[in-house]
Amino acid sequence: MRARPRGRRPRSTEHMAAPPRLALAHVRAAEGRLRHRLPRTPLLTSRSLSRLAGRRLLFKCELFQRTGSFKIRGALNAVRSLVEESERAGGALPRAVVTHSSGNHGQALACAAQAEGIPAYIVVPRTAPHCKQAAIRSYGATLVPCEPSDKSRAETAARVVQETGGVMVHPNQELAVMAGQGTIALEVLEQAPEVNAVVVPVGGGGMIAGIAVAIKALRPDVKVFAAEPRNVDDCYQSKVRGELTPNLHPLDTIADAVKTSIGPNTWPIIRDLVDDVLTVSEEEIKQATRLVWERMKLLIEPTAGVGVAAVLSEQFQAVPRDVENVCIVLCGGNVDLSSLTWLTDLPGKAE
Amino acid sequence: MRARPRGRRPRSTEHMAAPPRLALAHVRAAEGRLRHRLPRTPLLTSRSLSRLAGRRLLFKCELFQRTGSFKIRGALNAVRSLVEESERAGGALPRAVVTHSSGNHGQALACAAQAEGIPAYIVVPRTAPHCKQAAIRSYGATLVPCEPSDKSRAETAARVVQETGGVMVHPNQELAVMAGQGTIALEVLEQAPEVNAVVVPVGGGGMIAGIAVAIKALRPDVKVFAAEPRNVDDCYQSKVRGELTPNLHPLDTIADAVKTSIGPNTWPIIRDLVDDVLTVSEEEIKQATRLVWERMKLLIEPTAGVGVAAVLSEQFQAVPRDVENVCIVLCGGNVDLSSLTWLTDLPGKAE
Repeated sequence: MRARPRGRRPRSTEHMAAPPRLALAHVRAAEGRLRHRLPRTPLLTSRSLSRLAGRRLLFKCELFQRTGSFKIRGALNAVRSLVEESERAGGALPRAVVTHSSGNHGQALACAAQAEGIPAYIVVPRTAPHCKQAAIRSYGATLVPCEPSDKSRAETAARVVQETGGVMVHPNQELAVMAGQGTIALEVLEQAPEVNAVVVPVGGGGMIAGIAVAIKALRPDVKVFAAEPRNVDDCYQSKVRGELTPNLHPLDTIADAVKTSIGPNTWPIIRDLVDDVLTVSEEEIKQATRLVWERMKLLIEPTAGVGVAAVLSEQFQAVPRDVENVCIVLCGGNVDLSSLTWLTDLPGKAE
Repeated sequence: MRARPRGRRPRSTEHMAAPPRLALAHVRAAEGRLRHRLPRTPLLTSRSLSRLAGRRLLFKCELFQRTGSFKIRGALNAVRSLVEESERAGGALPRAVVTHSSGNHGQALACAAQAEGIPAYIVVPRTAPHCKQAAIRSYGATLVPCEPSDKSRAETAARVVQETGGVMVHPNQELAVMAGQGTIALEVLEQAPEVNAVVVPVGGGGMIAGIAVAIKALRPDVKVFAAEPRNVDDCYQSKVRGELTPNLHPLDTIADAVKTSIGPNTWPIIRDLVDDVLTVSEEEIKQATRLVWERMKLLIEPTAGVGVAAVLSEQFQAVPRDVENVCIVLCGGNVDLSSLTWLTDLPGKAE
């Protein structure tokens, strides 16, 4: 880690006082940046799951995206934006990018930084699974260990930004990250113009913010639903109360990638543009995940099962029947294969 | 089960004395029959597996095919052919279709027969896993239990044909079945005209026979490789000796769908049109399967891992470098999720 150059203020986009609001133009710009850099993911159907849901289901396969999740869209858009900014200013490349995430965003930022030849520092709790640390390291990033607490993560990341002169790229509150995730919506509208609703798992809310902004600008008739584990239902609580209500003491959930709460930049978008929040139990998430494995042969991670569970839930039966073509974003497939015991713990085979 | 009508001879295509040789026209006819009845499966790529192989790999995703494997192509072509034959003769629908298979062909024939409104009788060893029996039953077929021996399977199937006046549809020696499987090749040539080789797991040889006939008729420059577990290497032995050499005492293999031997109808095609047979160890099959799960997020069954293992093997390094674009047929995804212990038994994570 290099010493921070004198006179240079660390940049951070994590908690901007007055964040510029995400607009369709940002998502379009992201689409232009990512077009030849990332593959377009397929949209698959399933007769058997459609039958179970009583509607035609379309599955946006972000588990096939580079690094195994949609996160590379936002991370690469953020890194490319920084590079373009440097180029416009006639300066050198950014010195480094920094984030705290042991999960998909950590991998994605490491991959994006490697592609652009920029050092990446990923702050990871000492307790993170070995396989996740190995995945981040495989993209050439530097792992910076911290204690497994929010405080230590934030403090360590701030220190790394100081020491490296790097730029913090927040996993979900960063505008360029949200814009990158929003490109999913542009693809879905092209691949299935008949779509009537999109169902998106929500953690920090970066993906649903990007998607909602794009969808509601282009096709306000298409519903945008958030899907959330009941154990970490801060998005649902926020919508019910009409104010940002983070989870102070989140319960555990198998959908580990959405354990985090929505934040100050994603909340106003979710408040204004998301039609409804559907919450599901841990049991429903496991059943839905297993169902996708069995019937679709797609190795989704349980977080992707959250959206499927929402559409199969009784609650979703109340959605009007003319919402016929429902797109579920299968957000990722980074399953730790050595921890599959929960599958066999189920009371019975799904359905 | 109905009594066999008097004066009607049971038809069986299992061991025809002088089988008509499969030709491109049969595969084309199958393509016409299946076009609007089955989905076209996608051809996916993988940067990370291509890097490991040192060539560009293309994966034909038959695990997404209806019933979870390619087998529905052959089964539906066989059933539709019987229906058309009846129509031409101005007669009634076939009374029933019959086969012995606890695996993918059993499911596929049950599904095809259901689609055409014809009763299906599937002879299944009493010891077959409950989940496989349930899958067959879910397509409305009648299960006929037998003892777990080749003799009992054949005898029971013959008895059922007698009693029902049904038609035996052999899993791989039936011409219409081979022709149906051959439609995979027509799709691949359209989806990736740049293909230089196709790698196909071989059990009874129905799939590779259909594929080889189509490929060599249309694009003789494209190599056709068989991939086989070393524990059940009858195809390899047959090619080496130049004569059909069935496995009299096959060892066990995790690639259970290719444990069976090639037969009298597939052998001449394999002898004449298959460029080479690549054999792989059980360890290589497991590693390759796990690699596809981890990197591609595709829940293939171990039998589909056989082709991947072959391309990643040292043996494949001897294939000339101008064989650059290699298509591997991922033949199925019917994994028993409750039996995943072999994954964690591996000495280490794949690569």
